[in-house]
Amino acid sequence: MLYYCVRNVCKLKPSPCRVTLALQHTRRLCSSSSGEGVDRVKTLLQLCVDRYYVSPGQSNTELFQRGMSCCYGPLGMELRRNLLQQWWLSVTGPTQQVFGINTLSSSKDTATDGLRFVESEHLKPILEQQELSKEQLVQKIQTLIQRSPSLRTGFLQGALEQFVPSLELVNRKLPFGLAETGLCFQPRDGSGCPAEVTQTSLVWFCPPRTSSQWLDHWSRQRLKWWRQFALSPSEFSSSDVPEQELEESATRGARILYSFPWGQEPLETLWSRGSTELLQTHKGVRTKLQCRDGRKSIPHVISVTGNMDRGVMAFLSNSLQQLKKEESKQKMLQRKVLKLHPVLAPVKVALDIGRGTTVELRQVCEGLLQEFMEAKISTWPGYLETKPTSMEQLNTKYDEMGVLFTVVISENTLESGLLQVRSRDTTIKETKHISEIKNFLSRYISAADNI
Amino acid sequence: MLYYCVRNVCKLKPSPCRVTLALQHTRRLCSSSSGEGVDRVKTLLQLCVDRYYVSPGQSNTELFQRGMSCCYGPLGMELRRNLLQQWWLSVTGPTQQVFGINTLSSSKDTATDGLRFVESEHLKPILEQQELSKEQLVQKIQTLIQRSPSLRTGFLQGALEQFVPSLELVNRKLPFGLAETGLCFQPRDGSGCPAEVTQTSLVWFCPPRTSSQWLDHWSRQRLKWWRQFALSPSEFSSSDVPEQELEESATRGARILYSFPWGQEPLETLWSRGSTELLQTHKGVRTKLQCRDGRKSIPHVISVTGNMDRGVMAFLSNSLQQLKKEESKQKMLQRKVLKLHPVLAPVKVALDIGRGTTVELRQVCEGLLQEFMEAKISTWPGYLETKPTSMEQLNTKYDEMGVLFTVVISENTLESGLLQVRSRDTTIKETKHISEIKNFLSRYISAADNI
Repeated sequence: MLYYCVRNVCKLKPSPCRVTLALQHTRRLCSSSSGEGVDRVKTLLQLCVDRYYVSPGQSNTELFQRGMSCCYGPLGMELRRNLLQQWWLSVTGPTQQVFGINTLSSSKDTATDGLRFVESEHLKPILEQQELSKEQLVQKIQTLIQRSPSLRTGFLQGALEQFVPSLELVNRKLPFGLAETGLCFQPRDGSGCPAEVTQTSLVWFCPPRTSSQWLDHWSRQRLKWWRQFALSPSEFSSSDVPEQELEESATRGARILYSFPWGQEPLETLWSRGSTELLQTHKGVRTKLQCRDGRKSIPHVISVTGNMDRGVMAFLSNSLQQLKKEESKQKMLQRKVLKLHPVLAPVKVALDIGRGTTVELRQVCEGLLQEFMEAKISTWPGYLETKPTSMEQLNTKYDEMGVLFTVVISENTLESGLLQVRSRDTTIKETKHISEIKNFLSRYISAADNI
Repeated sequence: MLYYCVRNVCKLKPSPCRVTLALQHTRRLCSSSSGEGVDRVKTLLQLCVDRYYVSPGQSNTELFQRGMSCCYGPLGMELRRNLLQQWWLSVTGPTQQVFGINTLSSSKDTATDGLRFVESEHLKPILEQQELSKEQLVQKIQTLIQRSPSLRTGFLQGALEQFVPSLELVNRKLPFGLAETGLCFQPRDGSGCPAEVTQTSLVWFCPPRTSSQWLDHWSRQRLKWWRQFALSPSEFSSSDVPEQELEESATRGARILYSFPWGQEPLETLWSRGSTELLQTHKGVRTKLQCRDGRKSIPHVISVTGNMDRGVMAFLSNSLQQLKKEESKQKMLQRKVLKLHPVLAPVKVALDIGRGTTVELRQVCEGLLQEFMEAKISTWPGYLETKPTSMEQLNTKYDEMGVLFTVVISENTLESGLLQVRSRDTTIKETKHISEIKNFLSRYISAADNI
């Protein structure tokens, strides 16, 4: 388990700091009970780079592996967008008691945890003042630090501040929630750039006497949500946070975990926080915070914080299947397929051309592309590729990209309207009519969405 | 026109700095040729706060008015999400030659413009070193500054760095583009928090000989895009950037402008940048950058940068209609309607109950709510409101929120399945059957989307 260290005026119970993360990670990789685990990680990272999920570069893939935001390639970007979209829908959709908010990345609130920083442009004038003694210089810089803003390390504080205006929106009735997603920052060892993480946050305000039940409720909901997109749902699990690991203001905690080849990591962390922080944020003015429930109680706060960069990594890891395939002329080969859930897969369909008059076949593809784009089915225009590639090689590439279906337009299509559709998951090729292909794809994705 | 000041090792031609912005703004407001302009702004800002677009607070609404990210309320958040989604679809959709990327918010690249900052935790140990002389202290801090990271002020640099891996993706063929959206930072006067802006960026790589045509192309496309959502399209215009205002590396520039009550502000800025910065980023290694076009040319770069926070403000301003309505018993009143485009409107439909058995009517509403949620039609559950409100008051509220349709479930619905649907734009009430209402709404929104 990784421990997070929030370096600043810290109100949380001191947690073990993140000690030389790289080393810990390497150790974990080496001590992994099977060399197979290490291989699997290498294969996965190589695939991510080769197939446009993550941009190349040692430091970049390292960030990715640690569950931090990195430079994503187009497919990684789209996967993360899909995941964030699904998170948003799941949290703001059904209950209608969760509202989206947007707060600022940096704030001057000295009470909050955060990554306090000083702009160089504010430091320089002080350094240039020749007449200052050393003590005066130190004094001035310390004053600057005290007045300096902090980059947020999480969304909780923003939500607590938005509690009072939101209370009017819900007519002072509990429970309700505030949701936000975006970048949060973490200090990193060394003087490098601060780490960034794409976080999701639901802050749930509920009556004190039901806060424990609500923690259980959200814990179950979140685990169910992660599992619904998984090829191997059992790799996602939840566990209560042991008492010694509780955050200072938390009475209970739960984590949604993913079992990576190197060990378990938390994807979402839930805390039952009582009303301490809410009162602190609003300076103890109880009347502002009381809700309509007969008892004029101050709500309890449940925070549900997710790391979507790690989520992307989890689904990529979970979806990667390495299957042996027999080649009659060659030795056993490994076929790699990224069996991403239809709703998450960044590319739903690839369009390619077979034998026939290239110009005419391409026109057909252009038409289909337009049709798919209008139906918001993300398409890979394989037909634009001029390098000659065998169907075998294309299938390998598309399987590794996680493309759900490959559609091949051929001379036959020009004559009869029939085309070949190959499924990623079954590898079965079916013949369909060009007029039904879009509906087929739409229904396939919707069906997976509604399960 | 506002001028932006990027304070740092700046490669841009020095632009007039952003002088005490607040004062400039106030001056502009006061010198507005009609007091009506000032009134309109006040009315708009008040509506934004009352109707959950922007969180209350003087400094917050000020940020919003300046086209910077602020604390949005739930409706403002949803509007911005819709706008960003539409931008993304318009740019990555039709051509299929634009790929989404994700780069990091902070980087250590000393060559780039950015908001250079030092973490307080790195400063403190230096300040505490008692044995250092003043000169040594200054020296150490300056070294720290030189090695410190910068928060990005734009997405250009990230895209230029991603050019080489992306070139493989497109088989070294031009033109193609890289798109990214997210937060960018700007220094602010005083020692306050840096300003944040939700930026959109398309960086387009094209052959040198067609770069001027591409600038025109994108300029036209972008203006058309902004106008398609506008109630008064003429308030959106475009203009070429005069020569004296060109950025250092730019040969041509264009701006998409919105005519706010206080004057024109740029929503999107396009620059034709040549290949200078691309070569600089890749350290002059021409072979890495050459594309397949017979001439082995280095591409030219066109940057299209948008400010979506200002975009939200523009559409709110553009959509607000203040109409006189006659009240037979009272004097003329002003009816305020936020005529947001159906695709952008954060709440599509409000569900309310009329006369009848509350419990049963609410059940009908719950069923409709589920139906709407599944069809991804954002709904306001007015029926949950227990405070007695007249239909008149509800209509006023929903009109100011920009809700497209109000659906009222009454006793009649329980008997005959018929319900009342009121349109925001026409105020006409129609009777429809409960079974057709969802399709009616879906088709209304799709129709507006496809124009």
